Amino acid sequence: MGMVGGGKDAFIGAVHRMAANLDGHIQLVCGAFSSDAQKSKVSGAALNLPAQRVYGSYAEMFEQEKLLPDGERMDFVSIVTPNHLHFEPAKMALENGFDVLLDKPMTFDLAEAKDLKSILDKSGRLLCLTHTYTGYPMVKEAKEIIRQNKLGAIRKIYVSYPQGWLSTFLEGSNQKQAAWRTDPKRSGMAGSMGDIGTHAFNLAEYISGLQVAKICADINTVVDGRKLDDDGTVLLKFNKGASGMLYATQIAAGEENNIRLNIYCEKGGLEWKQEDNNSLIIKWLDKPAEILRAGNDYLSPFAKFNCRVPAGHPEGYLEAFANLYRNFALTLMAKQNGTIALEEWKDFPGMEEGIRGMAFIENVIASGKSETKWKEFEV
Amino acid sequence: MGMVGGGKDAFIGAVHRMAANLDGHIQLVCGAFSSDAQKSKVSGAALNLPAQRVYGSYAEMFEQEKLLPDGERMDFVSIVTPNHLHFEPAKMALENGFDVLLDKPMTFDLAEAKDLKSILDKSGRLLCLTHTYTGYPMVKEAKEIIRQNKLGAIRKIYVSYPQGWLSTFLEGSNQKQAAWRTDPKRSGMAGSMGDIGTHAFNLAEYISGLQVAKICADINTVVDGRKLDDDGTVLLKFNKGASGMLYATQIAAGEENNIRLNIYCEKGGLEWKQEDNNSLIIKWLDKPAEILRAGNDYLSPFAKFNCRVPAGHPEGYLEAFANLYRNFALTLMAKQNGTIALEEWKDFPGMEEGIRGMAFIENVIASGKSETKWKEFEV
Amino acid sequence: MGMVGGGKDAFIGAVHRMAANLDGHIQLVCGAFSSDAQKSKVSGAALNLPAQRVYGSYAEMFEQEKLLPDGERMDFVSIVTPNHLHFEPAKMALENGFDVLLDKPMTFDLAEAKDLKSILDKSGRLLCLTHTYTGYPMVKEAKEIIRQNKLGAIRKIYVSYPQGWLSTFLEGSNQKQAAWRTDPKRSGMAGSMGDIGTHAFNLAEYISGLQVAKICADINTVVDGRKLDDDGTVLLKFNKGASGMLYATQIAAGEENNIRLNIYCEKGGLEWKQEDNNSLIIKWLDKPAEILRAGNDYLSPFAKFNCRVPAGHPEGYLEAFANLYRNFALTLMAKQNGTIALEEWKDFPGMEEGIRGMAFIENVIASGKSETKWKEFEV
Amino acid sequence: MGMVGGGKDAFIGAVHRMAANLDGHIQLVCGAFSSDAQKSKVSGAALNLPAQRVYGSYAEMFEQEKLLPDGERMDFVSIVTPNHLHFEPAKMALENGFDVLLDKPMTFDLAEAKDLKSILDKSGRLLCLTHTYTGYPMVKEAKEIIRQNKLGAIRKIYVSYPQGWLSTFLEGSNQKQAAWRTDPKRSGMAGSMGDIGTHAFNLAEYISGLQVAKICADINTVVDGRKLDDDGTVLLKFNKGASGMLYATQIAAGEENNIRLNIYCEKGGLEWKQEDNNSLIIKWLDKPAEILRAGNDYLSPFAKFNCRVPAGHPEGYLEAFANLYRNFALTLMAKQNGTIALEEWKDFPGMEEGIRGMAFIENVIASGKSETKWKEFEV
Repeated sequence: MGMVGGGKDAFIGAVHRMAANLDGHIQLVCGAFSSDAQKSKVSGAALNLPAQRVYGSYAEMFEQEKLLPDGERMDFVSIVTPNHLHFEPAKMALENGFDVLLDKPMTFDLAEAKDLKSILDKSGRLLCLTHTYTGYPMVKEAKEIIRQNKLGAIRKIYVSYPQGWLSTFLEGSNQKQAAWRTDPKRSGMAGSMGDIGTHAFNLAEYISGLQVAKICADINTVVDGRKLDDDGTVLLKFNKGASGMLYATQIAAGEENNIRLNIYCEKGGLEWKQEDNNSLIIKWLDKPAEILRAGNDYLSPFAKFNCRVPAGHPEGYLEAFANLYRNFALTLMAKQNGTIALEEWKDFPGMEEGIRGMAFIENVIASGKSETKWKEFEV
Repeated sequence: MGMVGGGKDAFIGAVHRMAANLDGHIQLVCGAFSSDAQKSKVSGAALNLPAQRVYGSYAEMFEQEKLLPDGERMDFVSIVTPNHLHFEPAKMALENGFDVLLDKPMTFDLAEAKDLKSILDKSGRLLCLTHTYTGYPMVKEAKEIIRQNKLGAIRKIYVSYPQGWLSTFLEGSNQKQAAWRTDPKRSGMAGSMGDIGTHAFNLAEYISGLQVAKICADINTVVDGRKLDDDGTVLLKFNKGASGMLYATQIAAGEENNIRLNIYCEKGGLEWKQEDNNSLIIKWLDKPAEILRAGNDYLSPFAKFNCRVPAGHPEGYLEAFANLYRNFALTLMAKQNGTIALEEWKDFPGMEEGIRGMAFIENVIASGKSETKWKEFEV
Repeated sequence: MGMVGGGKDAFIGAVHRMAANLDGHIQLVCGAFSSDAQKSKVSGAALNLPAQRVYGSYAEMFEQEKLLPDGERMDFVSIVTPNHLHFEPAKMALENGFDVLLDKPMTFDLAEAKDLKSILDKSGRLLCLTHTYTGYPMVKEAKEIIRQNKLGAIRKIYVSYPQGWLSTFLEGSNQKQAAWRTDPKRSGMAGSMGDIGTHAFNLAEYISGLQVAKICADINTVVDGRKLDDDGTVLLKFNKGASGMLYATQIAAGEENNIRLNIYCEKGGLEWKQEDNNSLIIKWLDKPAEILRAGNDYLSPFAKFNCRVPAGHPEGYLEAFANLYRNFALTLMAKQNGTIALEEWKDFPGMEEGIRGMAFIENVIASGKSETKWKEFEV
Repeated sequence: MGMVGGGKDAFIGAVHRMAANLDGHIQLVCGAFSSDAQKSKVSGAALNLPAQRVYGSYAEMFEQEKLLPDGERMDFVSIVTPNHLHFEPAKMALENGFDVLLDKPMTFDLAEAKDLKSILDKSGRLLCLTHTYTGYPMVKEAKEIIRQNKLGAIRKIYVSYPQGWLSTFLEGSNQKQAAWRTDPKRSGMAGSMGDIGTHAFNLAEYISGLQVAKICADINTVVDGRKLDDDGTVLLKFNKGASGMLYATQIAAGEENNIRLNIYCEKGGLEWKQEDNNSLIIKWLDKPAEILRAGNDYLSPFAKFNCRVPAGHPEGYLEAFANLYRNFALTLMAKQNGTIALEEWKDFPGMEEGIRGMAFIENVIASGKSETKWKEFEV
């Protein structure tokens, strides 16, 4: 694979590389690691890439790589730049014949997302969007339990993602991550809602198989001087009659990355949280709760396919991330080889999730500003 | 004490008696345990009360007890009837010179609550309202930590109370608790919001010391055929700039009585849940979280006063309930003896909490029906 | 009931009284609260007892109470003195026709225990020994699951009771509890092994239904200057082929009263700990673990009989203690009334557990001093 | 790196490769994946290795690789065969100038271990032994807290490793892992004690910085027909006055890989368990317990160096394993480059741990057979 962005000091670039490395299927062969050609060279060298495969710009990378022979040329590109720099390289990659793996949220705004969809549809290429939390085996098990209707019809969905790292005006002190994520020119119209709200939204729709139909949002900028929201709570109405609530906040001082979800159905409920990601608790209306654990034989094929080690040896965030990379890579190889991709391989987030994520941002910000209670979720 | 209601089959009557018994300060001396005089007699006999102190009606009880000499006469009355039968006996008790301990919510509606306030104010008597969760020592510790400003200004308050017991149409099967709690004639205008929403609301205001100023509610009746709400989620704006969210639901299949609260402030947050009631977790922005535990010397006087056994020997719901009874009784004894009541003794919920609880019910139901987003919290 | 010991400042006396009070079946009517007659008077007055029922000595109490008419006379005596003062009052009570509830360990040494057994056998009276942890509903559920052979044959039993309160030389600073519990003249030949080791031992035998057959003990006095053991770890061989391990320590700094137990059988295991006493976890060899919770309908009659409030409202130590008192009192009332006591009522620890507890102390101390590995458990 | 063993179906070979891959420092360049040359070829092809670097035997691999130029030749060999096939390839690797990473336990018996030490000492090469649990950041934090004497002198160490996977006679059903691990010809003189007992032993010595001086072991073969121990409990005496207990069992039905450790010192204790590996709990004698969490700034350099992602994104077993690989590789590169290795890099288990692990096996099996209580721990 090649990489756009993710030079030194970039948090998420290193995460992507570790995720890509883990299973030995994917090799980083080239990159344009910075918009500054010199910085890109330095980063590429630190990654032990040959100098001629470290490019000064992504445009140059696509142009040059295209000329390389099969097997040597990168198979796909991983784009890990800030939000405002997602669309252009993704478009260019697709138009030059490269499949794309893209960090979330998909684009700068919904209009870009729709444009990218047209481009993707024309290109016939694959796109994977890194909604990491869907890579956890017990999240997949939860989805499968709902899909098989073991708990009956869904009634309530509560999802929350509290973080504390933006409790102070961190962007004032030159912290790189805080700087771009709170900057409307780079992050888009939303701060917390785009950064982590979209993850919570995606997790709820992924597991439940439902879609948000109406929302009512309370969106706040809590820290003085901040330009984007750092906190929001949203009442949700789903299709098929379920309702729920989502909150995402970056000013929950003392919280780390505490994303978690509860779904309640007619016969019972399920509970998952990242902090104990290898467990899935099923609570029953009239019998003892059960603790399902990663790595066990009793799990569904979807969960088991995404476990690497025996039960009780914890897997975590990088493994979930690696599941996205691996499933995308396996699907891509099947396509390249003309073989049939397993359902388990094709289970990674893509364009549809990207569109809905960008719609979430626009709807939730609009609802936050509105005096009317319920807002239709428009795409 | 004397008791109104709480005959055989009444869940909460037995709880009140155990709570009153625990510390040996309070003795049940009389009761009108049912509106059916015969049933009252049977219940009184089962409680080993002398027949002449088991009354056929509360009116009779107040009349007769008033005539008994000091020391023999009941000192206060505990009213544990369904909501529609709170006001009348409470009024009559106060007007006949008896102090009152009353189950929550305080009355059938807010108007009654305000009337009761006038009567109480005139009477010079004491009233205790059994918002049980405020009786937990670690809830008191949480309140004290906030009050001492150890965490800085409050930013977010999340409180939730999921139960699952009304996931089916239980009131259709003659279950006594379900029957009255879902009946608008006995419960009032709200179901879940009155029964457990008021507890969550009270817990948030008690610990935070803030008051809800605006709300936006999504109120649902999920189970077919049910006459009152069984589910609700409420966006909250507090005075002094904090915001938050409350949900209370009785259709969260698999949940028991999982009330819990998170408050986030400038420097850290705190977390308490009934299921682990003897712990209070303090999460700090920049240092390790702490687990404060009931029964330890390092706690505040308010928490320690409400612990009975050494740390590590769990106390629970009945002890929290007993703390309300004991603190009320100690305050009452001080008043009777003309001595000064300690701050720790006077720490029990009363008329103010009752009024705000009834206002919560009316505001939340009104907001649930409204198309406007924010509703002022009116009292 | 009457009480021997348990005056002001005595920790366990107050616990006994709260446990006795809780259900309203038992009333404290008299006591000899101290070996100092004056102190006894003061304590009795503080408990609102009439002066004539507060005795200067237990001898006087038995003598006088015996003369009172049925219904007025105490029905049984609760003995809550330090260990060296268990035998004499228990003997005298039995010989004077009173049933006895006795704090553990039963006596000062095993010889006394055997004498007491003879006296009890002759007397035809009932004796209850307060091994509190057997009063927890989920401990009873664990016992029932084993008894019904749901998990297959028992293979391993691990039980541990870490406390930290004796991590320093507390007995040097006039702390009353530390003083007598570390004093061989009052506590007996063992410190930690008698105080909490006996609880762990009893819990293992109670739940498993097995008996310890051989032991190998490492017994230590960790804190300088202490006269008795404050720490011990014991390898266990049970009858019927199971083996296991017990540790009890009072120098585990930072621990409160963290007694817990794991039993592993052919098909699965169970886990219980006091800190989460309302849960019992069943771990299965080949399916998800289950969390059984107090207060639920799916529990066995033995567990349900010992729950007072709906599931999710935590019960704790005092309720467990109260279960011993209530079950003893119900059994006693049945005997007095000539009716048949339910199996659930008769489920409280008594003479057999007392004898085995005292044997545990003697065997474990002997093994601790021995250079031979395995010691037969002799009674 | 090159690999000996770890062909298809080998559990631990795949784990080693993922651990080696994660950080992008290490590339698998060759291997002798099976003693069957054909199987080795198939495995190597599946790993995308060029055919000429997939060898029919490790002897051939060392011979051929030695002839390759610097930069192309493998830098070190990872040996992941069953225990009886550790010594020979390790010896040959060292004697042919290759550094070695070796799965635990180090050798078939202690004599081999001592021989290997001589060979290593002569060779001047590096050896890393994969005691995985020492790779967890919070294990390193625990070690650092003890080393800095924050808790005072150590008094008690309890370590346990329950597994349930050998609860049945799995080796009778052709399960490959069970087959060799219960076979004295391949596993050595111990089963559970070698497989997981050595891990528990190593964890206790690593964190505490103490050494076991005396032991008293109860070693059992619980499952009928099994040839080696599947269960053991060991009383421990450490140097410097601490004592403790270790148990490791493979017949704890329902347990996964539940290794955990408690250490108690004068001022407090610490608690770590693999199932919640990103937390370390510090319990204090006289103040609230603290929860230290991976990824936070407040941790020691040793812990932080071994974290890859922000706090709250769980890392797990593969990351711990990868820490061993990375630290070994960084140390090796420093050596090759003639630069100074950081203390954090050199923090991986090696020969000393290997010798003590083999001594543990021999001592514990000998003690298990002995009628004498305490056995000196001999190396």
